[in-house]
Amino acid sequence: MGLEYENAPFIAVDWGTTNRRAYLLLNGIVVGDENRGVGAGSLSPSQYPDEIATIRRSLGDYPILCAGMVGSRIGWRELPYTGLPAGIATIAAKVVEVAPEVRIIPGVARCDTPQDVMRGEEVQLLGAVLADLVPDDAIVCQPGTHSKWARIEEGKLVDFVTAMTGELFALLRDHSLLASQLGEPALPGPAFAEGVDRGRSGDLPTELFQIRAAGLLGKVRDEHAGSQVSGLLIGCEVAARLRTLPNQTIYILDNGALGSLYASAVEILGGTARLVSSRTAFCAGTVAIRSHLHAAKE
Amino acid sequence: MGLEYENAPFIAVDWGTTNRRAYLLLNGIVVGDENRGVGAGSLSPSQYPDEIATIRRSLGDYPILCAGMVGSRIGWRELPYTGLPAGIATIAAKVVEVAPEVRIIPGVARCDTPQDVMRGEEVQLLGAVLADLVPDDAIVCQPGTHSKWARIEEGKLVDFVTAMTGELFALLRDHSLLASQLGEPALPGPAFAEGVDRGRSGDLPTELFQIRAAGLLGKVRDEHAGSQVSGLLIGCEVAARLRTLPNQTIYILDNGALGSLYASAVEILGGTARLVSSRTAFCAGTVAIRSHLHAAKE
Repeated sequence: MGLEYENAPFIAVDWGTTNRRAYLLLNGIVVGDENRGVGAGSLSPSQYPDEIATIRRSLGDYPILCAGMVGSRIGWRELPYTGLPAGIATIAAKVVEVAPEVRIIPGVARCDTPQDVMRGEEVQLLGAVLADLVPDDAIVCQPGTHSKWARIEEGKLVDFVTAMTGELFALLRDHSLLASQLGEPALPGPAFAEGVDRGRSGDLPTELFQIRAAGLLGKVRDEHAGSQVSGLLIGCEVAARLRTLPNQTIYILDNGALGSLYASAVEILGGTARLVSSRTAFCAGTVAIRSHLHAAKE
Repeated sequence: MGLEYENAPFIAVDWGTTNRRAYLLLNGIVVGDENRGVGAGSLSPSQYPDEIATIRRSLGDYPILCAGMVGSRIGWRELPYTGLPAGIATIAAKVVEVAPEVRIIPGVARCDTPQDVMRGEEVQLLGAVLADLVPDDAIVCQPGTHSKWARIEEGKLVDFVTAMTGELFALLRDHSLLASQLGEPALPGPAFAEGVDRGRSGDLPTELFQIRAAGLLGKVRDEHAGSQVSGLLIGCEVAARLRTLPNQTIYILDNGALGSLYASAVEILGGTARLVSSRTAFCAGTVAIRSHLHAAKE
């Protein structure tokens, strides 16, 4: 993309609701990392300086660039969203220094109806293009508690939509009448595939109860119920998106098991999926934003 | 229907997961009632005799006929389900006396794929026909935590399906990221209607998050969010059913506000709805089952 990355080391932090992942970057390469289950959901604003000190004790006393829920209403400081279309330059222009050499990247909002918001995913999305993980024009899915489906055009984020699929799964697993059936993790396989196939109808309230009833009548083993429910929810989400995106390759940004489930669902529903590394994408995005900040200062 | 109701008074109890409603019936007429928020979800089996004593202290020392979750795995005693088709005689034949003059009506299971179960609704459904609230051939919807959609043919329950719509709403209201927006009760009106219209797509994971995003961006007032979410969920459920039931009148068995929301959703989605009293239907059903028990004894 013709961007010149600066050489000076810095620390990029992907700071979500439940975790933060800190990477020490030198010449665009991760040379150290430090992760902790201390997300925006469990920190008050006054606790962030101590967390920053912890990161610097571990990775070194370098400038820090954060993205994610750290910049939200439940984070360190609520920053205004950037609008669409969003490229590296527009996002870099809204970065805020919240403490000495600690900066936060703002999120992106879709202000037209239907409204939508993201915080942190924009860095991965643009970074994936810069790192040549996805083409300049692409559909990218980021699985998660709140999965994002983004449209990239000419290297910029032009539109996106969110599905709270992961949150629905957690609600069912932790608090619903199905909870006792959902102790086992969701795995790819026949039970997941059956769920995906049934999820395409979009009749979640009914399909979910049928797993409960099948459990009561001994027709589904508890070890398969989690995979079925996961398949139902992911199938519902993926089928709705594929209906509006026929014949497109879906790039799935993920480093974990969830990405494999999404790729499997896309293929079951007749689409083409490619898994790419969200960690590599995030780091590439922060390096590009940092280069822009650096260039603007000069 | 030609059934002769016996004259002797008895007490019918609609014993669900969170409430029990007891009715003293004489010649098929409710002459007294007593309700308490003591459902199968909060009672251990050993606590039922005390509850029975409480009911009899209030309504008199009469025979008691119970239906609902009292006969489930979480109730007083788990009774085997009756199969389909289910009429008054088949259900009456499986009633069990669990204590002196205290009997429980079993539930009904759909054992074919997809499996489904009900406990208590079968009494309302058959009672609604006997009380001439619905015709001998009808589609009946019973809104609730787990709503039922039943097909009645020649006065018998021949098929049904369950949607856990009410449970999903409660999960979202009590435990989700949307919780702070859902403090106000759902009401019929433009916000509910908008939700119903958006729910017909079946893309719940996405539509739900859009209400969250609209709230964050100040585009939807919290007083309307509950009605929108309720509309989304009920709209998803009703649209899925109407797709398989074109041009049928939907009889909605309910005595509360939820029945009005369902009737409104049916009309918005192009169907015809008629509200009928679930309390009257329940009492008629228990009177018919009691008459059968009485006749069988003679």
